Parts: sequence; C-alpha cells; structure tokens
Amino acid sequence: MGKTFLQLKSMEEARRLLEAFSPLPRTEQVTLREALGRIPAEPIETPEALPAFNRSLMDGFALRASDAASAKETAPVFLDLIGQVQMGLAPRQSVGPGQAMAIPTGAMLPSGADAVVMVEHTRPIGPESIEVCRAVAPGQHILGRGEDLAQGTRILPAGRRLTPLDLGALAACGLVTLSVCALPRVAILSTGDELVDPDEKPGPAQVRDTNALTLAAQVTQAGGQPLRLGRVPDDASALLNATGKAVEQADMVLLSGGSSVGVRDHTTTVLDKLSGGKLLLEGIALSPGKPTLLADIGGKPVFGMPGHPISSFVVFHVLVASLLRRMSGAHPPWKKQGLRGRLTENVESAPGRESWLRVRLEETREGWSVIPVRGGSAVYSSLAHCDALLRLPAGLEGHAAGDEVEVEVLR
Amino acid sequence: MGKTFLQLKSMEEARRLLEAFSPLPRTEQVTLREALGRIPAEPIETPEALPAFNRSLMDGFALRASDAASAKETAPVFLDLIGQVQMGLAPRQSVGPGQAMAIPTGAMLPSGADAVVMVEHTRPIGPESIEVCRAVAPGQHILGRGEDLAQGTRILPAGRRLTPLDLGALAACGLVTLSVCALPRVAILSTGDELVDPDEKPGPAQVRDTNALTLAAQVTQAGGQPLRLGRVPDDASALLNATGKAVEQADMVLLSGGSSVGVRDHTTTVLDKLSGGKLLLEGIALSPGKPTLLADIGGKPVFGMPGHPISSFVVFHVLVASLLRRMSGAHPPWKKQGLRGRLTENVESAPGRESWLRVRLEETREGWSVIPVRGGSAVYSSLAHCDALLRLPAGLEGHAAGDEVEVEVLR
Repeated sequence: MGKTFLQLKSMEEARRLLEAFSPLPRTEQVTLREALGRIPAEPIETPEALPAFNRSLMDGFALRASDAASAKETAPVFLDLIGQVQMGLAPRQSVGPGQAMAIPTGAMLPSGADAVVMVEHTRPIGPESIEVCRAVAPGQHILGRGEDLAQGTRILPAGRRLTPLDLGALAACGLVTLSVCALPRVAILSTGDELVDPDEKPGPAQVRDTNALTLAAQVTQAGGQPLRLGRVPDDASALLNATGKAVEQADMVLLSGGSSVGVRDHTTTVLDKLSGGKLLLEGIALSPGKPTLLADIGGKPVFGMPGHPISSFVVFHVLVASLLRRMSGAHPPWKKQGLRGRLTENVESAPGRESWLRVRLEETREGWSVIPVRGGSAVYSSLAHCDALLRLPAGLEGHAAGDEVEVEVLR
Repeated sequence: MGKTFLQLKSMEEARRLLEAFSPLPRTEQVTLREALGRIPAEPIETPEALPAFNRSLMDGFALRASDAASAKETAPVFLDLIGQVQMGLAPRQSVGPGQAMAIPTGAMLPSGADAVVMVEHTRPIGPESIEVCRAVAPGQHILGRGEDLAQGTRILPAGRRLTPLDLGALAACGLVTLSVCALPRVAILSTGDELVDPDEKPGPAQVRDTNALTLAAQVTQAGGQPLRLGRVPDDASALLNATGKAVEQADMVLLSGGSSVGVRDHTTTVLDKLSGGKLLLEGIALSPGKPTLLADIGGKPVFGMPGHPISSFVVFHVLVASLLRRMSGAHPPWKKQGLRGRLTENVESAPGRESWLRVRLEETREGWSVIPVRGGSAVYSSLAHCDALLRLPAGLEGHAAGDEVEVEVLR
C-alpha cells in the first residue's frame, strides 16, 4: 500500500464489501414487556385462536336471529328478557326460542344465541321483555371464536422491529415470551496518545476523547450494544493485542481514530497481521471520511474510523449503521423520506467523492430553509448546530442557492 | 351529562385544553454517558475554551509566517528543522526565526510559531532542514485557543433532545454532568372486569389486558416513564381509591378502558369527585377515540382511554403523546414529513370527526402504495398489519383510490 496515496474505493464498492458480513446467529428469549424495538428471530404464529370465545361487539341483546329475521319498526318482535351477561363471566343461562339476554360489548355470547341486536334498535317492554324493531341476521355484531386470528396464523414476519401495536397483538394471542435476535456487541477502542477520558481534566496539549462517546450513542441508536474498551497507546503491539481481544469479545470493532495520520500505519499493519485478517478498504470516495479502513477479521468487521469528530460521525451514519442493522437481524426499514427545503447558499461537493454536508434547518413561511454549516470537520461548534445531513452523490458538483433539496434529519 | 349522547369537543378544542398542563419543574443530574435523548433543563454554556491550546490542523511544520511570507516554488525558503512535536505533549522547544518543527494534525503549536505549512508544500533538505515552497500567512492551518468555542458560549438551547453529536460537543467542552428534565411518570391503571394479565391464562369469557402493554410502550417511545399499576375492579369506590393513589404517584394517569361503556359512568363520577378534579373532555370529534375522557386533577392530566385496542392506540398517538412530550420539557420537534404514496382504495372519514385510518405500505416501481387496513377497532389481526396512519381532517369526506396522500409511518 502506498503511504501517501489512498486507494479509494467507491461507495458502491464499499457497500458491496459490507454485504459479506452476515446477520448474527445468536437469539435470546425476552418477555413482551422487554420486547419493544426488538427483532423477532423467526416468524411468529398465534398460539391460540382469537377471540377465544364468541364475543359481542355491541351493547345490546343476545338472541336467536331466526326469532327477529323479519322485525321492523312497524312490526316489532317481542322477546322474553331472561337475564344479563356479566363481563368476564361465562353466562350460566342458555337463550331459547323467543328469549333474549342483555349483553355488554366484549362479553361472551350465551349458548343458544347466534346474534346481537344493538340496544338502540330495541325498546324495553316492562322489566322482563323487550321489543326488537330491526331485522336481525345470524352472526350480526358478533366476533366468532378464531374469527380475528385462527390458531397458527402467521401474524408477524421475522426481522421487523416490534412496535407498541405489535406487542398488543402478540399479547392478545397469548404470547408471553418470544425469541428475538441478540443485540450486536460493538467494541469501541480509542487510539491517539493525546486523548484523555471525557471526565478527566486534559493536561497541556491533551484533548478529551469525544468520539468514543458519540460512537457509543450512535451504536445504541442503531440497535447495537456498545462495549467501551477505553484507550490503547499508539504502538503496534499494544494495538495488536487490544484489537485481538476486542474481536474476541465483540461482533464488530470500531478503532476510533484508527485511520488518523500517525495511527494509520499501525492500524493497517495490525489489521493485516491479525489471525484471519483481511484488509478490505483502505480509503473511500467519501467526504468527510476518506481515510476509513475496514478489515474482515475472522468474519467480524473491524473499522479504522477517522479521528475528526464530524468524519467519524458521518462514516458511522453512512456505512456502519446499516451494516449494524443488518447484523442485528433487522430487515431494511422503510426508506424514510427526508425533509425537503431550499438551500440558502451554494454548496459544492468534494470532487469525485460522495459528500455529506452538515446543515441547519429553519422553518419559514415558505417552508424549510436548509442552511449549510461551515467549519472543518475538526470544529466542535458546528456539531451542536448540525440538524441534518445533505448528501451530494459522487459526480454531482453541487447545488445552487434556492435549489430544493432533501436532507436526512438527525434530531 | 347526558348518558347517551356525548358532548363532543372538536380536536382544536381538545388540543387547546391540553395546553393548560405545564411542563414538569423537576430536573435531575446525569452524566454524558446517560444523556442520549435526554432534554437539557437550561441552555448549556461551555465551561472551557475550545480548543484549550493552539492546535495544528494539518500534518506539516510549525514556523513563523514572517519567515516564509514570500516563499514560492521558484524561490523556496530554507528553515532549520529543530525537532518534532509529539501528540499529547507540550513542546519543550520554542521556534525562533529561521526555524521550524515537524508537527502532526491536532498537536500543540510550539511557542514562537504562528503558522503551519502543510508537508505537501515543503521539501526535505537533509535531516536538519526543509525548504518551504508556498507563501505562508500568519495563523494558517492553526485553530487558536478558544477559536472554536470561547468559554461561556451558549452551545445548546434548553428543551432539545440530545443527539450523539451533541454529546460529543458537550464532552469536548469539558461538561461531565448536566441538568436534564425529569422523565414524566405516567401511571397506567386498567379497568374492565373481563381482563387478566397478558401472561395469565384467561378463564372462560376473560381476555388478556393488551392495552396496558401497548400504552406502556407508547409512553416509553414518547419519552415518559410508564408505571404499570395493574387492574382495578369495576366499582366506583375501588376506582376512586386507585385513581387517587395513581395521581399522587404520577405526573399523568391513563385509565385504560376507563371510557368504555360500563366503566364510563364510574370514571366520570370518580373524575368529578376527586379532590381538585375538573372534567375537561367527555368526548372528542375523533375516530376512533370518540368517548375519550380527560380531567384535570390538581394540575395533573387524567385520561379515560377507550377500551378498543386501536382506539386506545390512536388516542395516545394523536393527543397524549404530544402532551407528554411537552410535559417532558421538549420543545416541539421538527414536524416530520410523512411518507407520500397512492391510495389503492377509496376511504371515507367518520362524518364530522377527524379520522385516523390504519394503512399498510407496499413499495412498488411507481412509489408507495397505501393500502387501507379493514376491520373494526376491536380486531387484533389488523394491528400487526398497521404500518402507518392516514389522517382525514374533520370536514374532509374522504379520498378516492389513486389519490396521493401523506401518512405517518409507525415502524
């Protein structure tokens, strides 16, 4: 490898290389209360019929439809009221010809009855009889046993993050625990002799390690489990040792700052040397993020991440996050539509590279203003003003002020 | 109150009533590692200047700009190379006239030097001298102390959920802990004598309480802390007692099933009776969700939620979630653009009510298909097929098949 010129791979090549890594095979059992956002490892079939009994869908009277098939306002049908069905209790009586029982919404249909007439379509005639003023059809206002979901119905596919509604549907069917994909463990190892922990006071010439914190938060957002392994001194044998251990512990490794000048040569050597190591990427046509490294170490992806905070963030957002989602067993989610707005200034892409620009958003009467955030990728003040990212594909030179663009909102 | 006819309030009135409830005054201290998604209780100012020292932005040589102000390819300037700055260490030497020191990106500028020249714009002349081939301006390729963020700069406003980038910026400035808004505690109390816990086996005529599970997940998603208080028997004194305790413990109370027929009369009585209670809503022009109740009990919102699973979900999504976000101290987030697609069938709204329809999404070559999900709001099989919600404002009769509509994606 040349030390000065990077052998840049296009983003298409980079994405293709990432496809070589497989979803994790590990699964775990969770209860429904723990299952929000988790990913079913296999399609889910209903263990029970739903509803488990014939239910009334209305407040009214359970009856035999044949008794009131021809009932109308001008020719109502009289029925004997023999009692009232209680919520949550199986009715002890049976409804015979010419009889009816009061029934609330959701209660169990008494035997003998095959329909419900709404209370609005009846009139009370003393305490022990009613008149039905509308024709009643068999099955009317009833949800029959298994009519909602028959036992064994495939209700949810594998690979789709569980929503609050999904949890409700699974609970309704009597699912108590389910098998979900394990969360991918992502080791984060910081390189850079100038770094101290964020909660330490830096000495002269030292700076706080902010990227490990941001990366850990990005891992959490993308559905992984961050393992913060701290810092490793900038020498090849320490890095080799620490990276080897990280690969053993985790499903993916991020060497934060590992593609920075100074650390880079050690990183490439280490990634080459590690048992089963195969250096896949030594630079991408991406801006920021060009020097990014990627190796396959025994089937596990190990990234050498850029040291500049914005570059590290963008490389995770653009490359690492989707790989992490796939490793977590998630099917590709809906391609979210971005937010459309008008650029307030001209923007240019880095020649020949896919470029991701930081932008700030402001709502105006004419819609959204998309305001480019200036400042190099080492500048922290720009981080907190970064509301969204604007992608400029490789080959597109830029956009003019006033152009309508679509951005990916980060907040 | 009439027992049969609801006094429906419009959605506008309902939203206005919700504005009476204030954001919580409670705050708590968290470390940056715990701060993802939390909401700063006050604007954040940088406790330290950033960078804390003059840093090089390039790999190159630190020098005095005046020495190389007129350097060019055809007339390079020779400088004595007096040493190399190490990452993370304060340089012990000073750069004098006619001198230079090698310096990596991010390292501390040695005293005496006021600029950096990129390594690409120099040539080595033996081990102890270089030639500079480009003119150098003072301050070039240097980020001066405090130039990124001066001490005391307001870096983040209150009320905005912290992103991974925000955490990085805060860490860079030396923030270790910060004051965030407390998570609103939302008590969920289930009513309905037919209910059993989701992990219990229902007896004849009983059903599992799925709504409390879905509501708890919705509370979590909206940034609250669910308190699941279990079930309360359907009688007025038990409900009064349990609701009173829930109001003491929590910032908001959801009586799941509390607006259902059968429970409703007890709920309205209880909400009226509770000390400081004021019934605000006894029905909304919303479909599904019409019978929803809302009271203000000593400044805390108490909702009587519908019993049908879809109705309960929609009422939370449409009314409760935004109130919960505001109580949590969050400023309104970006109004997310929905997903646009074409309806595959005609849809109709409930006359005079704002209607929210369940839809399924399918990607086609022509874009997204928006497929209405049929089934009453008591039907569970429709839950797992609900990818998004389509809002039909009150007054709009419906849409025709083929119309382009915007939907709120739930997955």
